[in-house]
Amino acid sequence: MSEFLKTQALDIFRAAVRACDAGNLVRQALRRNGEILTIAGKEVSLAGSRRVIVIGAGKASARMAAAVEEILGDRIAAGLVVGKKSQPPSTEHRASPALQKIQVMEASHPVPDEGSLLGSLRILDLISSATDRDLILCLISGGGSALLASPMPPVTLEEKQEVTRLLLKSGAPIQDLNTVRKHLSQVKGGRLAQAAFPARILTLVISDVVGDPLDVIASGPTVPDPTTYGEARRILAGLDLWEECPPGVRELLTRGESGEIPETPKPGDPCFERAETFVIGHNRIGLEAAAQRAAALGYHPLVLSAELVGEAREVAKVLAAVAGEVKKRNRPVSVPACLLWGGETTVTVRGKGRGGRNQEMALAAALELSGTDGIVFLSASSDGEDGPTEAAGALCDGETVDRARGLGLDPLRYLEENDSGSFFSALGDLVQTGSTGTNVMDFQVLLIQSGFWA
Amino acid sequence: MSEFLKTQALDIFRAAVRACDAGNLVRQALRRNGEILTIAGKEVSLAGSRRVIVIGAGKASARMAAAVEEILGDRIAAGLVVGKKSQPPSTEHRASPALQKIQVMEASHPVPDEGSLLGSLRILDLISSATDRDLILCLISGGGSALLASPMPPVTLEEKQEVTRLLLKSGAPIQDLNTVRKHLSQVKGGRLAQAAFPARILTLVISDVVGDPLDVIASGPTVPDPTTYGEARRILAGLDLWEECPPGVRELLTRGESGEIPETPKPGDPCFERAETFVIGHNRIGLEAAAQRAAALGYHPLVLSAELVGEAREVAKVLAAVAGEVKKRNRPVSVPACLLWGGETTVTVRGKGRGGRNQEMALAAALELSGTDGIVFLSASSDGEDGPTEAAGALCDGETVDRARGLGLDPLRYLEENDSGSFFSALGDLVQTGSTGTNVMDFQVLLIQSGFWA
Repeated sequence: MSEFLKTQALDIFRAAVRACDAGNLVRQALRRNGEILTIAGKEVSLAGSRRVIVIGAGKASARMAAAVEEILGDRIAAGLVVGKKSQPPSTEHRASPALQKIQVMEASHPVPDEGSLLGSLRILDLISSATDRDLILCLISGGGSALLASPMPPVTLEEKQEVTRLLLKSGAPIQDLNTVRKHLSQVKGGRLAQAAFPARILTLVISDVVGDPLDVIASGPTVPDPTTYGEARRILAGLDLWEECPPGVRELLTRGESGEIPETPKPGDPCFERAETFVIGHNRIGLEAAAQRAAALGYHPLVLSAELVGEAREVAKVLAAVAGEVKKRNRPVSVPACLLWGGETTVTVRGKGRGGRNQEMALAAALELSGTDGIVFLSASSDGEDGPTEAAGALCDGETVDRARGLGLDPLRYLEENDSGSFFSALGDLVQTGSTGTNVMDFQVLLIQSGFWA
Repeated sequence: MSEFLKTQALDIFRAAVRACDAGNLVRQALRRNGEILTIAGKEVSLAGSRRVIVIGAGKASARMAAAVEEILGDRIAAGLVVGKKSQPPSTEHRASPALQKIQVMEASHPVPDEGSLLGSLRILDLISSATDRDLILCLISGGGSALLASPMPPVTLEEKQEVTRLLLKSGAPIQDLNTVRKHLSQVKGGRLAQAAFPARILTLVISDVVGDPLDVIASGPTVPDPTTYGEARRILAGLDLWEECPPGVRELLTRGESGEIPETPKPGDPCFERAETFVIGHNRIGLEAAAQRAAALGYHPLVLSAELVGEAREVAKVLAAVAGEVKKRNRPVSVPACLLWGGETTVTVRGKGRGGRNQEMALAAALELSGTDGIVFLSASSDGEDGPTEAAGALCDGETVDRARGLGLDPLRYLEENDSGSFFSALGDLVQTGSTGTNVMDFQVLLIQSGFWA
C-alpha cells in the first residue's frame, strides 16, 4: 500500500514549504543589534537614517512585513505593502498578525485591479518624500508585477489589464510579459528605484523565477532594466497582438520607442548607486530542507535540479523515467530513494478543464507510472495555489490510473481537457495547503521503494 | 573553447554504439561447443536438430546474421534475413561480409516496400517446411516491423504503406503503430511463431524500444500479442484516421473485430510452447560502456535513465536543468561530470523542415544552454539515422545560439519549422556516423566542466 508513501511525500513537501516561510526567510536574513542592521551578512547602520520606510509587493508581502516589523518596529516611520487578496490561510501557515507600522493592502492577481493601482500610488507617494538621509526597505516577492500596477499615462488601468490578459492568453513566457509590463509602468523596470532616489533603497527578494533574475522577479522595480520600448512593441507584434492592443498602449510604446518618453533606467543609471538587492529566499532553500527531511525519514535524497521548466505533461515523462531507473537499477541513487526537483513548468491550455501545472504533471506522471509498485509522485506549488485552482498540486502512484478507471474516469481524457483538478479531486489525491504566504515556485517529490514492502 | 569537450562527447557516444555492435552482442550471447549451443546462459543441443534455419528482420539483421554464420555456419541448412536498404556504412562500422549460408535481403524503412513483402514471403516459405525436429533461429532488431511486411488479405502492400504513413505523420506512439500493424499482418504479433510451429524457434532480440517489451519490438513476430483487432480500430478512430484509412484496412479490422478472422495468437497459445526469446542487446549496455569511457576520460559519470521518452524539445529543457544544477551546485554529481541518458523521444511535426528527434532535442538544448560555459550536449541515435535524415544527431553548447545568429540563423525559427537538420548542418555540428548496423535507440551525453578551463 502506498498510502504511507504518500503521507511521507506530503511530509517532505511540507518541510520544503516551511523552510521557505516568508517570515522565517526575513528573520534569517535580517539581524539587528541596536542601531546595526545586518542584511544577508552586510552591515547597515540605522544611526545614519532619519526615517525607515517599508514598501513592497508580492504574494509573500504580508508575512515579510510582519517579520520586518518584529525586528525594526520601533524604527519604522511608515510602511505599505501590497499582498494578494487572501485565500483562506492554512492552519499550518497561520494568518499574518495585524501590524502596527506597516499597512498591508490587498489587490488582485494575476490581472491587476484598483487595489494594485491605489497601492502603487500610495507607495510612490510615501517614497517621494524620502531624502538622501532616509532608508527604504523594499520587500519583493512573486506576484509583485500584478500587485504593483501604476500605468504610465496615457495608459489606463483597464488598458493595462487588457494587455495583461492578451499576453497571458497567448502563453507568452514571463520574460516577454514583463518586458511589456515594465514599459507601461511608473514603478516596474527600475522606476521604483528612480522614484526613491536619492534615498537609500534596500530590496529583499523572495524569488519565484527560475535562476533568480532580479530584473524579472516582480518586474524588477528596483533594478536596472535591460529591455527597451522597441522590444516591448516587437513582442506584441510577434505574437500578432499589436492590432488588438488598446490605443493607449500602442501610443505609449510608439512614443517610447521614438525617444519621446524616457526609457526605463538602464545599468549605470545614478539611481542605482543608492540601491542594493538581496535575494533572501529561493527554491533551493526548500529543496535542501526537503532533502534533510527525506534523509531523516530514511530515504536517500537526491536533488536533480532547482530549475525545472518545460511543458508539464512532457516533463512528467522524464521525471518518471528517472524514477524507473532508480527502481530497476538503483541509480542514479539507490532505493529507498527520494528524488527532488524544483522550478516552474508550463501548461499549454487546449481543453476547458480545471487544473494547474502541478496537477497536470501529476496526471501525466500517473499515466507513466501506471502499474508500477512502490513509486509515489508529488508535484505542488509552494504558494498553495496551482494555477487558477484552490489546490497546491496532486499526488499519484502506480495505482492511480486503475483507481480512476474503477471510478469510471478516463485519465487520458482528463489530460486532453486539462482537467487534472477534477481528476484528482474525484480521487481524493489533491495536495491542499491553503495560502502559505510564500512563493518560491514548485516542488516535485518522488519516493521510490524496493519491490516488495509492507 | 568547447571543441575539445565536443570531441570527448563524441568519443563517449561512440563507445556506447560500439558496445552495442550487433555482431559483438551476438558473439557474447551465443557460444558453441561442438553440438552444444549456449544462448544467454541456456544450453541447447544441436544434436537433436535435423536442420537449423536462420531467419530475421531489422536494421541489425546483416550483422547479426554474419555473427551467427561465423558460429554456426556448418550447421545452417538455410537462412534469410531482411535488413534495411543500405546507407553508406561508416568506416568504423565496416560493411557486413558476404555470407555463405544466410541470404541477406534489403527492404525499405520506415515504410515497407516490395522487398519487405518478398522477404516475408520467402521467410514464411522457409519455415513452412520446418518440422518439430528442426531448429529455427530468429534474429530480431528494431525496424523489423517495416522490413517484415506481409499484409493479410484483403489488405494490399499499398494500403499497408498508406496506413503506416498516416500513423507516422500523426505522431502516434510506436505501441499504437504496432497494434495496428500487427493486425494487418501474416507475420507480426506472434504469427511468425504460429507459422513456424511445430518447429522449435529461438529468437534473439536487440531491443530498440523503451523497457524492452517483446511484443512491441519489431511488432513481436514470435511472442504472444496482448492487443486486439478492436484496439487497432479504436486507435485509428481516436486519431481521426479511420475515414482516411484505405478500404482493405477498414474491412480487415472490422471483420477481425467481429471474430470473422482469427485474432493474433494470445498468451497460452500452443505455438509458444516451442518458442523462446532472448534479449541480447539493449540501450543500457551502451550506457554502461559510455559511463566507463567517460570515467576513463576523467569525468564523474551518472546514468539518469535508459527509458527517456517525451517530446524532444521539452525533454531538452529537463536535461539542461539537470546540467545547470551540476554546473552551479555540483549535484546530482560533481564536475567534471558526464550525465548519460538513453531512450527514444518523439517529435510532433508542425513545420516543414528537415530533422530528427535527436537534432531537434539538441536545438532546444542550445536555446536552454545559451550563454553557459563549459557544458556540451550531444544527442544521437545508435543506428546512425535520426528520423528521415542522414545524420545520427547533433551537438551543441552555450555558444551555439550566438554562432548561429552570427551566421544569420534564428534558432527559434528553425525549431518552429522542425528544421534542426538544416540548422546544425550550417553550423557543422551534426553527428554523422553512417549506418552503424545496430539499433538500441538514442543516447544523450552531457559533459559539464567547472567555470573556467582552458
